[in-house]
Amino acid sequence: MSSRLGQLFQISTFGESHGIGVGVIIDGMPSGIDLDIAWIQKELDRRRPGTSKWVSQRQETDTVEILSGVANGKTLGSPIALVVRNKDARSKDYESIAHLFRPGHADYCYFKKYGLTLQPGGGRSSGRETLARVAAGAVAKALLAPLNIVIQAYTLSIGDIRAEYIDPDFAETHPLRCADPEIADKMVELLDDIRQSGDSIGGIIQVAAENVPAGLGEPVFNKLDAMLAMGLMSIGAVKGVEFGAGFKAAQMRGSEHNDSITPHGFESNNSGGILGGISNGDTISIQLAIKPTPSISIPQPTINIEGNPEMMSINGRHDPCICSRICPVAEAMTAIVLADAFLLNQRQSVR
Amino acid sequence: MSSRLGQLFQISTFGESHGIGVGVIIDGMPSGIDLDIAWIQKELDRRRPGTSKWVSQRQETDTVEILSGVANGKTLGSPIALVVRNKDARSKDYESIAHLFRPGHADYCYFKKYGLTLQPGGGRSSGRETLARVAAGAVAKALLAPLNIVIQAYTLSIGDIRAEYIDPDFAETHPLRCADPEIADKMVELLDDIRQSGDSIGGIIQVAAENVPAGLGEPVFNKLDAMLAMGLMSIGAVKGVEFGAGFKAAQMRGSEHNDSITPHGFESNNSGGILGGISNGDTISIQLAIKPTPSISIPQPTINIEGNPEMMSINGRHDPCICSRICPVAEAMTAIVLADAFLLNQRQSVR
Amino acid sequence: MSSRLGQLFQISTFGESHGIGVGVIIDGMPSGIDLDIAWIQKELDRRRPGTSKWVSQRQETDTVEILSGVANGKTLGSPIALVVRNKDARSKDYESIAHLFRPGHADYCYFKKYGLTLQPGGGRSSGRETLARVAAGAVAKALLAPLNIVIQAYTLSIGDIRAEYIDPDFAETHPLRCADPEIADKMVELLDDIRQSGDSIGGIIQVAAENVPAGLGEPVFNKLDAMLAMGLMSIGAVKGVEFGAGFKAAQMRGSEHNDSITPHGFESNNSGGILGGISNGDTISIQLAIKPTPSISIPQPTINIEGNPEMMSINGRHDPCICSRICPVAEAMTAIVLADAFLLNQRQSVR
Amino acid sequence: MSSRLGQLFQISTFGESHGIGVGVIIDGMPSGIDLDIAWIQKELDRRRPGTSKWVSQRQETDTVEILSGVANGKTLGSPIALVVRNKDARSKDYESIAHLFRPGHADYCYFKKYGLTLQPGGGRSSGRETLARVAAGAVAKALLAPLNIVIQAYTLSIGDIRAEYIDPDFAETHPLRCADPEIADKMVELLDDIRQSGDSIGGIIQVAAENVPAGLGEPVFNKLDAMLAMGLMSIGAVKGVEFGAGFKAAQMRGSEHNDSITPHGFESNNSGGILGGISNGDTISIQLAIKPTPSISIPQPTINIEGNPEMMSINGRHDPCICSRICPVAEAMTAIVLADAFLLNQRQSVR
Repeated sequence: MSSRLGQLFQISTFGESHGIGVGVIIDGMPSGIDLDIAWIQKELDRRRPGTSKWVSQRQETDTVEILSGVANGKTLGSPIALVVRNKDARSKDYESIAHLFRPGHADYCYFKKYGLTLQPGGGRSSGRETLARVAAGAVAKALLAPLNIVIQAYTLSIGDIRAEYIDPDFAETHPLRCADPEIADKMVELLDDIRQSGDSIGGIIQVAAENVPAGLGEPVFNKLDAMLAMGLMSIGAVKGVEFGAGFKAAQMRGSEHNDSITPHGFESNNSGGILGGISNGDTISIQLAIKPTPSISIPQPTINIEGNPEMMSINGRHDPCICSRICPVAEAMTAIVLADAFLLNQRQSVR
Repeated sequence: MSSRLGQLFQISTFGESHGIGVGVIIDGMPSGIDLDIAWIQKELDRRRPGTSKWVSQRQETDTVEILSGVANGKTLGSPIALVVRNKDARSKDYESIAHLFRPGHADYCYFKKYGLTLQPGGGRSSGRETLARVAAGAVAKALLAPLNIVIQAYTLSIGDIRAEYIDPDFAETHPLRCADPEIADKMVELLDDIRQSGDSIGGIIQVAAENVPAGLGEPVFNKLDAMLAMGLMSIGAVKGVEFGAGFKAAQMRGSEHNDSITPHGFESNNSGGILGGISNGDTISIQLAIKPTPSISIPQPTINIEGNPEMMSINGRHDPCICSRICPVAEAMTAIVLADAFLLNQRQSVR
Repeated sequence: MSSRLGQLFQISTFGESHGIGVGVIIDGMPSGIDLDIAWIQKELDRRRPGTSKWVSQRQETDTVEILSGVANGKTLGSPIALVVRNKDARSKDYESIAHLFRPGHADYCYFKKYGLTLQPGGGRSSGRETLARVAAGAVAKALLAPLNIVIQAYTLSIGDIRAEYIDPDFAETHPLRCADPEIADKMVELLDDIRQSGDSIGGIIQVAAENVPAGLGEPVFNKLDAMLAMGLMSIGAVKGVEFGAGFKAAQMRGSEHNDSITPHGFESNNSGGILGGISNGDTISIQLAIKPTPSISIPQPTINIEGNPEMMSINGRHDPCICSRICPVAEAMTAIVLADAFLLNQRQSVR
Repeated sequence: MSSRLGQLFQISTFGESHGIGVGVIIDGMPSGIDLDIAWIQKELDRRRPGTSKWVSQRQETDTVEILSGVANGKTLGSPIALVVRNKDARSKDYESIAHLFRPGHADYCYFKKYGLTLQPGGGRSSGRETLARVAAGAVAKALLAPLNIVIQAYTLSIGDIRAEYIDPDFAETHPLRCADPEIADKMVELLDDIRQSGDSIGGIIQVAAENVPAGLGEPVFNKLDAMLAMGLMSIGAVKGVEFGAGFKAAQMRGSEHNDSITPHGFESNNSGGILGGISNGDTISIQLAIKPTPSISIPQPTINIEGNPEMMSINGRHDPCICSRICPVAEAMTAIVLADAFLLNQRQSVR
């Protein structure tokens, strides 16, 4: 495996769903930056399960401990180690299905690659590892805060219910992080139906990063959009990523898609704030396709580890739609990549 | 900048549009692999400009030279250096617009980041750098060939004209690499219109990798889809990337999206051949959103390097739609990432 | 900072002398390798302070906890996180000298680089961080164990007292890890004198790695000796590293220094087991120059953080000679580098 | 193999002794730095063979070509590709010994690792690859020049003839780069004897880097001395590296070895300008053990690729002592590492 990301803002995560805990080391953070534990805890709380009936009922306080790298509310320049201990890991829930590959899950591939019997809760492949991403993202946000960079993600659509209008403040208070107050009730209704039918559903989330200065990104391979695509696609549920007009650009003409440049900035933002792999100073705008969570109670055909067919039904504490809980994770990955891009760009300061 | 990609299959590219030449060093290739110059040249010829009226009329033979790393048709294990000299670089074409930021191009961002006057033809940001990717991709394909891994890309849509059916052999012979013989003429017609109007248009291409063994990809950050997303998004014209059902998954239910597992394999391929960031043995299937080429002769508003508004019209030798020429580049990036993932996975062979 | 080492066998360490604890994440370990906590604890015990009067009297049990990556005595392939909590961190000892740069220590440089007030016990620059290296080294040794690779370090000299003969078993039982039973008493005597005079003294340690297969090392920059030199020179007290004949080679002739090759192996080992940066199958033999520990109670001139001269005397719990405690650390770094080189060489297995 | 070095100042070298040429890509160089071809050529000329009877008689002009990354005497920020074509590669010289492993050379290890028949002149393992290092070093020196950092290497000893006094200007003009005018004639005399006897001899060189600002180096693994040790040990002939007092520190007491700090700087430089892995502002001083060149005409026992014993005598154009030609290479590696350390430290500029 490789749970290491970043060139200068370097993160290394660890932890399995039903092990002792999960955590992260953040290395490369400059010294003297304001950082306290409440700032990190606040971000973790935004990702926490058990907060509404539309997300997993696993009960975790997800209390973070800082083991190193911070003293007196300031970073030391040394590696920052953060740990969260698992509390409510019910391995029992998995005993009856431990011999089956769950469809849509990583089980089959982990078995093929690592040659091990299946781990309870998916082990390392569980969404629980995203907790470490959010913790690291809180540190990245602390680096970006003095630059006034603000990153927010919200739910644009679930199934066929799609936002027409975006109100980020509303999204922050809504249990599904729905961006549009007009459609929020319909979205809740749909999700209630899905939950009761034992099924799950996909959606689209959007990430917006405001006030990113022009100049971040290192062509030709560490372009800002390439780095962001990698960071975001590494989130389990993400099956597609697009910037600005994205797939709509495939139907546009150059005369329509090109963002005209004026003395006061760009007249449109089809590029999503990135041109030639470098931030252009406009809002960075990203959409992510989120797949329906694969854990459903509706019976599905699969095979066991001997290769024989069986039907399986997954009961347990699962999210019927993961969009709202992916939002803080997507923000975190965006912050982590921007922090790295920002530090990488400092080399140009020698000029 | 950072023109270095890969952890074990490592590539480093160089070259500007109107400089001496472009090239690549491939390091980490195992010794004893069959590789000859004709194999590499063949791939470069698939990307070459000037081959039809629907692509750039720049005349380049793009003849590759191997400077190191190969002897007697076998790799030595040492770095393989490949160079292609530029022949038909008409800097004159750019003199009249050297003070203007071309809308939709990287000019503005390069100026902000590197603080330099604009380079003819976009310098390093030119699509000409993709030549080095294709050369490196040919070497990656040579590593994957004994595994029977076959990678092919083709045009799925241009504007509103979209393939219903995929015939890879037809695509290989068609000037637009159109996947569907039924719509190929309509696609040509549309492109003729676009070309004559001085405009450009976007499209979607698909990349398919067959026979990839299960087990490639290194969670949680170097997941196979994350690495592919980075490699593919680093191609200039790409604005979106999706795997399998991709953005369609956002409207699907779990019971529909999950690929059922049978003793004979998966019953569907909504995952696009990757689960939990690891290849599952099924065809890896990727769609890319290609933006309309920004160089158009229709006049557009922009600013000059002093920040004052001007109108500009870009005449020169440009591609009205870049999809067909991106295909070999997308194949190359896919091959490069798969080669790296394959070598990374060798560590598990110690078990 | 950058507390990350390794390309495939990747370690990331954290922790300050007087913080909550120190630890390491080891990523890239293949799955299915035998590993239990007792194996790791045993190595930590070999490095522990407070075990004799010739080493620091700091009392630490250094009990390791495994947070992830291991189940049922086997590695999972996922990151292995190890944590040791600090117990006996007496920050009080440092209060009276917190405004002074200790000569021979990193204080001055940390102040210049990180701009922070001095951390108690040196913070991140303390030798306590080597605990994380030893923990990671234990994991590396577990990877190398099935290959019969054995790594041992011992004290070759302290001051002018130098071993003539090497008995590794004796060294393992001797409190100073003295390699030669004949001189062990003299070494102890010298160290007693040094300790009582409030001074410290340097020495030379040797690391030997037996049964390393031919072929490890990746020229031209990740040569095995280059990687080992980096790993070993990154240990605080090391001021020189040499392989085989080392600096003696500077006075030798080629006819004398070249190791003749016979059908049964090399006739001598002036190369120290590495030729052209690649292991040749012979014992890898390395000598390290260890500087006298800078913390001495004899008064020394220095400056305070305002830049004014002061005399300082360092009282506390320090090692008069660090050689014996560097031995397990040097073994660990050797094991970590060999583990990485071994995994890197697996790519050649595709041939 | 891995011919890639550096995190921000990234170099990738290529080329075999008897191939088309050797070269390097330097990536990560900031834009707007003064750099012209004469500056690079001058450094290559300092390394060139055939300049006196005490070095290899291979006749090479070693003329460098810049393929990219520079325009109008300034760096563009894009990768800088430099190529030197081989002219005088007489593969014929090696035909008669192509089946034999040369003692002290990498032949045996390359055969074991890469499984290939031996390449003429050692192929990639030849000292000719150091040409690419010197070219990259010239670019690194261009980055360091505005900071007034000056790096020079000279010969401290050959065999038993050792400099007492160092005159860097004299060394620059002397064919052996002997540091001490008083012993220069004796050194020449010794080398004449060695050359005529068909043997070779080792020596020690010193590298001094002046005006390096305090603060370079990234603990705990990318310490400045660790990075320098790796870069320098990766040079083929180097068998030992020490900083400041180095191995002499092993016999010193703390009271003697600690460099006292005064308001005007350090009173001595036993540390060699590096404390805790970070530059302290004093001169960085490094000594390197250089082994006798293994190519000697005196007959030596070895084995052939079938494993049977044979005697061999190496005639050709070899250096009886490589010290003088290693000097520019050691300077280059020092410059490359310092350039990287300097760029890495820029991240602290955000504070």
